[in-house]
Amino acid sequence: MINQYGRIKVDLATELQELKALGFSSANFETLLRQALPSFHSMSSQNDWLRLHLATTEQDIYSFFQQKLALDQAIFYRIGAQLLGFNDELANNNLDGVATFQQLGLPIVAVDNIPHAWYTLLNTHNSTGLLLIDALVSQGYLPQNNQRLIFNGKSLPTFDTNDLIRESVWVETSVDTDNDGQLDLVQVDIVRPKSETPLPVLFTASPYYQGLNVKENDAKIHSVNVPLQRKEPTQVDKNDVTYQGLSASTAKPREVAGHATETEVSFTAEAGLPVDLNQYFLSRGFAIAYSAGVGTRHADGMQDTGSPEQVESMKNVVEWLAGNRVAFTNRYDNMAITADWSSHKIAMTGRSYLGTLATAVATTGVEGLETVVSEAAISNWYQYYRDNGLVVAPGGFPGEDMDVLAELVYTRMKDPADWWRTRSQWQAFQSETAHLMARDNGNYDRYWDSRNYLNHIQNIKIDMLMVHGLNDWNVKPRQVYQLWSALKQNNHVKKIYLHQGEHININNNRSLDFSDQINLWFSEKLLGLHVDATTALPTVTWQDNTNPEAWHALEDWGIGEKVSYHFADKKLSRSSQSAGEVSFRDWLPEDQFNHYGKHFNAWRQAIISGKIAETAQIFKTEALSTAQTIDGEITLNLRVKSSKNIGLLSAMIVDYGTDQYLKVSPTPQEATVDRGRNFSPTRLMAFEMTKANQKMVTLGHINLQNRTNAWQTDDLQADEFVNVSLTLQPTHYQMRSGHQLGVVLYATDFEMTVRGNQDIVYTIDLANSQIDLPIVNK
Amino acid sequence: MINQYGRIKVDLATELQELKALGFSSANFETLLRQALPSFHSMSSQNDWLRLHLATTEQDIYSFFQQKLALDQAIFYRIGAQLLGFNDELANNNLDGVATFQQLGLPIVAVDNIPHAWYTLLNTHNSTGLLLIDALVSQGYLPQNNQRLIFNGKSLPTFDTNDLIRESVWVETSVDTDNDGQLDLVQVDIVRPKSETPLPVLFTASPYYQGLNVKENDAKIHSVNVPLQRKEPTQVDKNDVTYQGLSASTAKPREVAGHATETEVSFTAEAGLPVDLNQYFLSRGFAIAYSAGVGTRHADGMQDTGSPEQVESMKNVVEWLAGNRVAFTNRYDNMAITADWSSHKIAMTGRSYLGTLATAVATTGVEGLETVVSEAAISNWYQYYRDNGLVVAPGGFPGEDMDVLAELVYTRMKDPADWWRTRSQWQAFQSETAHLMARDNGNYDRYWDSRNYLNHIQNIKIDMLMVHGLNDWNVKPRQVYQLWSALKQNNHVKKIYLHQGEHININNNRSLDFSDQINLWFSEKLLGLHVDATTALPTVTWQDNTNPEAWHALEDWGIGEKVSYHFADKKLSRSSQSAGEVSFRDWLPEDQFNHYGKHFNAWRQAIISGKIAETAQIFKTEALSTAQTIDGEITLNLRVKSSKNIGLLSAMIVDYGTDQYLKVSPTPQEATVDRGRNFSPTRLMAFEMTKANQKMVTLGHINLQNRTNAWQTDDLQADEFVNVSLTLQPTHYQMRSGHQLGVVLYATDFEMTVRGNQDIVYTIDLANSQIDLPIVNK
Repeated sequence: MINQYGRIKVDLATELQELKALGFSSANFETLLRQALPSFHSMSSQNDWLRLHLATTEQDIYSFFQQKLALDQAIFYRIGAQLLGFNDELANNNLDGVATFQQLGLPIVAVDNIPHAWYTLLNTHNSTGLLLIDALVSQGYLPQNNQRLIFNGKSLPTFDTNDLIRESVWVETSVDTDNDGQLDLVQVDIVRPKSETPLPVLFTASPYYQGLNVKENDAKIHSVNVPLQRKEPTQVDKNDVTYQGLSASTAKPREVAGHATETEVSFTAEAGLPVDLNQYFLSRGFAIAYSAGVGTRHADGMQDTGSPEQVESMKNVVEWLAGNRVAFTNRYDNMAITADWSSHKIAMTGRSYLGTLATAVATTGVEGLETVVSEAAISNWYQYYRDNGLVVAPGGFPGEDMDVLAELVYTRMKDPADWWRTRSQWQAFQSETAHLMARDNGNYDRYWDSRNYLNHIQNIKIDMLMVHGLNDWNVKPRQVYQLWSALKQNNHVKKIYLHQGEHININNNRSLDFSDQINLWFSEKLLGLHVDATTALPTVTWQDNTNPEAWHALEDWGIGEKVSYHFADKKLSRSSQSAGEVSFRDWLPEDQFNHYGKHFNAWRQAIISGKIAETAQIFKTEALSTAQTIDGEITLNLRVKSSKNIGLLSAMIVDYGTDQYLKVSPTPQEATVDRGRNFSPTRLMAFEMTKANQKMVTLGHINLQNRTNAWQTDDLQADEFVNVSLTLQPTHYQMRSGHQLGVVLYATDFEMTVRGNQDIVYTIDLANSQIDLPIVNK
Repeated sequence: MINQYGRIKVDLATELQELKALGFSSANFETLLRQALPSFHSMSSQNDWLRLHLATTEQDIYSFFQQKLALDQAIFYRIGAQLLGFNDELANNNLDGVATFQQLGLPIVAVDNIPHAWYTLLNTHNSTGLLLIDALVSQGYLPQNNQRLIFNGKSLPTFDTNDLIRESVWVETSVDTDNDGQLDLVQVDIVRPKSETPLPVLFTASPYYQGLNVKENDAKIHSVNVPLQRKEPTQVDKNDVTYQGLSASTAKPREVAGHATETEVSFTAEAGLPVDLNQYFLSRGFAIAYSAGVGTRHADGMQDTGSPEQVESMKNVVEWLAGNRVAFTNRYDNMAITADWSSHKIAMTGRSYLGTLATAVATTGVEGLETVVSEAAISNWYQYYRDNGLVVAPGGFPGEDMDVLAELVYTRMKDPADWWRTRSQWQAFQSETAHLMARDNGNYDRYWDSRNYLNHIQNIKIDMLMVHGLNDWNVKPRQVYQLWSALKQNNHVKKIYLHQGEHININNNRSLDFSDQINLWFSEKLLGLHVDATTALPTVTWQDNTNPEAWHALEDWGIGEKVSYHFADKKLSRSSQSAGEVSFRDWLPEDQFNHYGKHFNAWRQAIISGKIAETAQIFKTEALSTAQTIDGEITLNLRVKSSKNIGLLSAMIVDYGTDQYLKVSPTPQEATVDRGRNFSPTRLMAFEMTKANQKMVTLGHINLQNRTNAWQTDDLQADEFVNVSLTLQPTHYQMRSGHQLGVVLYATDFEMTVRGNQDIVYTIDLANSQIDLPIVNK
């Protein structure tokens, strides 16, 4: 199935106008079809193509045209399927083009109005994940003349990606993170098509852009095989942990020595891997800017993960792109240069750390930033490396932390003389970071509060577009859920794509026209066209977890209504409460402990399948009699005791039932997507299903000494019951009929928490424990 | 270690001339270094680079130049290491540049002659696998003006890969494989830089080029879970199985209707994945041609794996490229077009099937073909799908055969009307192929003899360059060994690269300058320059199997002298013969049989490690007291009996000893190699080592009914001893001191033979069995 939401309805007159602008002026199907063969420059060579393709099940197109037979819908869509490259699908449908279109979810219209049918076909996805019109332009249908051309509200790839300008400038930021009395300069790399008119800009703030210090990163990874430590109880007010804001730097701006009209530094290839979505837009007349920010190669400053100063430096880049800040042609001459090629309309893009900084810059309300497309972004760093008073690692990265990530991207160490000059300052800076992030404590404090962008949501003045994987256990779904929920307070438009993948991009996915949708979105936000993207795109686009290629438009996320279950021995019950206690022992023999420490995926599989039953308690519902959809956050209200005066509790929700489940990592397809004209080809991706006995749906962790909140340390006595409320990562998940919903209660999470192997017994008081599920009826 | 064999010695005057042609006219190091920063267009921006890099351990280059301090070798090579991007290696060597160069195996010369030292540095590999001069040109040091420039005997990337011509023509072949009375036309896709002078051509004959019918291929895979069948004994003379040659087609050539000056069909992206080595040469002023041959998409004819007709069609493409045959602008108008852009000097390139057809075309002696670079090529199809009277699959592909491969590439089925027209003819053709290839027999006959290119070695009139993996069990090493050995009879130059990988390319490997060497080779063979490539390149370049990045130049391959061992119970003995018999039973319980049938790698691991001991006999030498190098073919002379009147024998040579072994699949590195100017970047690859208890060195299989040869069927009686001589796949392998050489005798090979699970007991007469190893002392 191909789900196209980026198609807008235009009236027939507009269709005719747009077709004419493209040179499709005829209402004769043969004429149009021949035009759609831009690789064939003669009638004879076109005839060869026509002879190789079928009009009816027993007649090729050439002979069909020769005999001047009547065109009907069956023939139009049989030919259409071949033009789109769906030959295999057509063969599987016994050469029935209409059935093929139906099966693929592609639009079918009456063929009595040929221009309308042709317009619709041009606006339909082909087998390589492009609109037919995009594919034709890529194949040379239009000249790459660096002139913008809009079709159905979207920019066409008419910009020459074989003749791009690539140049660097240095933006003067408003921070002095290395305390040398000079405002830090940051390098900005610009890639842009030639154009006589100013271009909108996609800015990707990526600390990864200047490379990675992988070896140094790995050397800094913290051991997680350390005991959970008891914390002294404290009484802390929210104000005590509230960050007071960035104070203005006392460093003075440089005096501008003059104004240059040309840059002095160019490059032939980007320093880091270009963002695929950006490549798509280069050929469509958007300029791209990359900056790694302060504390990276060729820039000044220290590297401080997610800090207000880092965010400020990225905001400053936007200011330069919008004409409101100075940049220089090199780091010494103070010769200013303006972004005179910029239309001053900027969007920020990127996934993970990149999307995080885009979100953070949005919360500054900076002028010129018109929208953000953030994928798998962090909104609150506390919840990336900590949670509920615990050190909790991003999935897949045990032992990573703020200082480790900083080490990864302090790429000034890649230039030998820069490293020699800044090494000791950097090492002192990292010691301070390690002290501030306080792995031995895990509580929320001012350090973390300054890196919590949710505090500034009220400053967001733009329409936002978010993408997140509901199986992203690296940047967990709560990061976007809390942003989404907070944005309900402001009046700007927001859109969210909830896919079933892990920490991935979806812009090259076969089943969704994501790039087209962003193209439409940018037409409205950056080009100022009245294309009605706001109403065309669904508010919530949710990928169905029970189907490989289905995406549904929803009104909102997180609106499930509470349905509670009581805990019983091995069971969850809607009706009756159970008395009694059940326990599990958080301890493994050394060989098992070592094995699972190395293979945490095997550990997770083992614990949810009951293979290491002694370390967990699993509670399951009866097999569901109807499908139920969980929408939002599940909360566990538990009465629990620890056999020691320390404790942590973890929980997973598991869908039990032997069935086909979506793989969280999409599969590369044979077809490649062309990002321009033979530019930056990338693999088309598709989600596939695989058989399994169960699937983890969501999870959560809490320190039993942080029952009140993340900043106050509560007391905990051995063997005394306490009440704890644990809210799990949000989801939108369909439990199928016949499946059982399960809760796995355990303590040490081999992938995410510390692994003390401290031999603690945890006991649950069943009568006083329940789970609250947010359920929507479908 | 970086092994550069593609560097030639030129006199100092030539060095100065070449430097001057490149614009490096100064003898001042600062001037030269600044020129080598083509991305920095001002003194100030260059100064920034100089400030970021070190001259001494405590002074940056800028300040070093400012103070006009004396340059010495330590400073030159410290700066040189940074210019080449070996910053990590330099840091690991405490900033000692000379030590860094030594560790990497890079050339160090005195710096009293700056131009000579600079020339040598430009001719040295950098951290991305390119010569420094190539990297500079890629970064814009020279204009991409489509003018050839030679440096140290090699073409520089001065051709514009952003402005390539891509066009198709149809060559009229001299075969009519679909028997329609018309000579078959084949499509040739040409990719070439613009040039005012004719260009040499790299032609890749690739049946894969027009795509793959993967689903249809998979549906045709033969079951290998079938019994080994008894064959009726026959008396066959070699003449009875000798192919008589291709008879000329009775189809008449088309009448040329006129002469065109321009092609009619163009394309923006190649239909198939371009060959990486070809991409490298596009930017260096070589034209590339691809053809999939007869029986593929957009061509005429039937698909017949490795057939004389297939080879002839590829030879015909060479003839057109050399100006000796007609091609047309489309398939219907008979308008001829010449390759007027071709210098008529052609090389064929490619790996696997592609290299196979290159080898095959070389054996036609066709005019215009000046050399062949064949990688992992088949020289004799019998030994690809059969061996010694057995059906033996290529490693990794059990059940594949001639018809399966034909189905994979009969891509005419991708065009619906072409498939509709040719389907029944194709199905009949495939039935005939299945009949001719005779899986139920396995003997060599005329069908196979016509696909044995070794029969025509005497026609090879060109210098050949071959590449093969000594761990390639897909196209096994004997394919190139027999070609190599046969070529000793002719007077042309031959070179061979024996790497330790499996079925891979080595042109982007970090430790060998393979692409440079081919560049030098083509200068001599295609450009006619006197660069002495023949003497510069080693005859045999052998990758050391005991070291991750060592390559050695050898004089010849297969010159080991016979050292024999006697078989004893579990042992191999140089001195004493043993009496007695040992047996193994070729049978597994059903669950194990099914498991290993699905996981043949696990089966191989199990059998060589003695985990399924009952199905094999393992014989080992004492631990070797000195290293020994096996060079050539190992032969087993065995006296053996089967408990039934059928039987097959398999043998593996295994290196037993817990140690570091090279992985057969190289590891992608972070760095990417640029194939031009920001063109077709590819990952740099490196061989790495891994610890293991043993490693398979070589193997072989024989039908006990083919003791005389592959075409005659001998009798075999149950429980009667017979003498059998089994020659294993050739190798060049160093057995390290302390290791034991082992022979594993078994029958069913779960990866390669049929799997009858027929419960046969095989017995070896120890006293009359021995192994002959070809050993060279190092």
